[in-house]
Amino acid sequence: MHNGIEYADMQLIAEAYDLLRQVAGYTPAEIADIFGTWNEGRLGSYLIEIAAEVLAHTDARTGLPFVDVVADAAGQKGTGRWTVQTALDLASPVTAIAQATFARAASGQRELRAAYAGLPGGTTPPLSRTEAARFTSQVEHALYASKVVAYDQGWKMIQDAAAEYGWKIDLAAVAGIWRGGCIIRAAFLDRIRAAYTADRDLVSLLSEEGFAREIGDAQVPWREVVASAARRGIPVPAFSAALAHYDTLRAGRLPAALLHGQRDSFGAHTYRRTDLDGAFHTNWARPGRPATEA
Amino acid sequence: MHNGIEYADMQLIAEAYDLLRQVAGYTPAEIADIFGTWNEGRLGSYLIEIAAEVLAHTDARTGLPFVDVVADAAGQKGTGRWTVQTALDLASPVTAIAQATFARAASGQRELRAAYAGLPGGTTPPLSRTEAARFTSQVEHALYASKVVAYDQGWKMIQDAAAEYGWKIDLAAVAGIWRGGCIIRAAFLDRIRAAYTADRDLVSLLSEEGFAREIGDAQVPWREVVASAARRGIPVPAFSAALAHYDTLRAGRLPAALLHGQRDSFGAHTYRRTDLDGAFHTNWARPGRPATEA
Repeated sequence: MHNGIEYADMQLIAEAYDLLRQVAGYTPAEIADIFGTWNEGRLGSYLIEIAAEVLAHTDARTGLPFVDVVADAAGQKGTGRWTVQTALDLASPVTAIAQATFARAASGQRELRAAYAGLPGGTTPPLSRTEAARFTSQVEHALYASKVVAYDQGWKMIQDAAAEYGWKIDLAAVAGIWRGGCIIRAAFLDRIRAAYTADRDLVSLLSEEGFAREIGDAQVPWREVVASAARRGIPVPAFSAALAHYDTLRAGRLPAALLHGQRDSFGAHTYRRTDLDGAFHTNWARPGRPATEA
Repeated sequence: MHNGIEYADMQLIAEAYDLLRQVAGYTPAEIADIFGTWNEGRLGSYLIEIAAEVLAHTDARTGLPFVDVVADAAGQKGTGRWTVQTALDLASPVTAIAQATFARAASGQRELRAAYAGLPGGTTPPLSRTEAARFTSQVEHALYASKVVAYDQGWKMIQDAAAEYGWKIDLAAVAGIWRGGCIIRAAFLDRIRAAYTADRDLVSLLSEEGFAREIGDAQVPWREVVASAARRGIPVPAFSAALAHYDTLRAGRLPAALLHGQRDSFGAHTYRRTDLDGAFHTNWARPGRPATEA
């Protein structure tokens, strides 16, 4: 779980870097400075700190920014994969972790990348320096909101696993343990620990007053960043998965209803209704006919 | 694999329905008509046909559209899960299938949905009827492009599995078999069969001239639809995963480079370079020091 969350956090930071570079037009050194500033605020963490360090580094051999010399294919040792495979067994939707894991896999798919190279991308013009500064603030909101969602997915998966396997897990203590010498260490984990200390059965971090207020402030810029990335052709698999998770879970009605109906239509899998208990089946060959109990 | 692709196709159709309903403001009956029209074109398929049938159906008990009465939690029998778990072992990025599988899981997460209910969404105003008609055409492009990417992910996973397990698979024949009585049956599969008949080692459907031209025509409206959904708060996990896959694979440089550097920084995992063969390690404690071979 720790490493699954770490995969998501690293992918989100990488997407923020890519947006600041390709949309805002900043150099790696300038982005190192931005990350350095963010490291003093709510995003302060070991991973942001070393991202700044890597971005500030000049390659001694070429004199180029190190990040432009290192291969753009990320390795993995399998812990992200293991997290997502277990999440699928638990039906626990850790979509930001899944997208981060697949993003590493995609980066290593050389033949596939060669096949897609040259396909057309977005067309919108670059930002002015003033617009870039505003965009940087939007990216900070988007990164923070996506991070809260990714961590929320992780903690919920621990809850789902505890329920499935009959474990007793102190969710506040998990945050306390990871506050120490591990890779996702950050003051942010104190916030999570406090939330689960105040309510040990908290279903979601987003129910906690402080996180809810921050997400409320972040959601419009978060949406603007995901929309800009889509229009400009910058890949943001984890940012957009986190936003889709947020919008899926807060939706009053999901289009899963249509899918649910289709499954009854092609497989007679039956369906449940909003107004009656039980399992129902419709005779789809005669669409006028009332729903009948299966 | 068939069922994994089916999960993606159904989720994409469900997202198209949701956009037409919530952004364009159409009724289920109107969307049934739109899907009926689409069924005569390149999206023609059994799944679009039964989506139209379900949307056109009025619930006999309540007199309401059936899709508003059926529970909005989609069941699953585990075949999508199995596809994604195998894809993770193969490092084959089937992100649209993964997002579709997790979307079903999320729809059934009652407590989590209750926790997120009431969190703020998008703020943009509804579309006029003229704008709605234009948006409908954009959604058709977005659905088609996302579908091509999802099927491309599926066929590539079969190739990755064949390479890993030493199977000899005739990729054109797979399309031919699924052209028959199965759930993803569609004239579209003839296009895939023709592509792999013309080039049995085709790495991606998007390398084939006809698909490449269609994606070229679709990509701007596709981006506009994903951007609109993000800004308006409509969840499009599969549309946006397909677009992120497209933009990831066509990118000249991926921010995986930053991640790759971070992994050397915190774990001395070493890194590869774009200009030299071999594995390298930087002494991050002394950032001025040149890269040294590990």
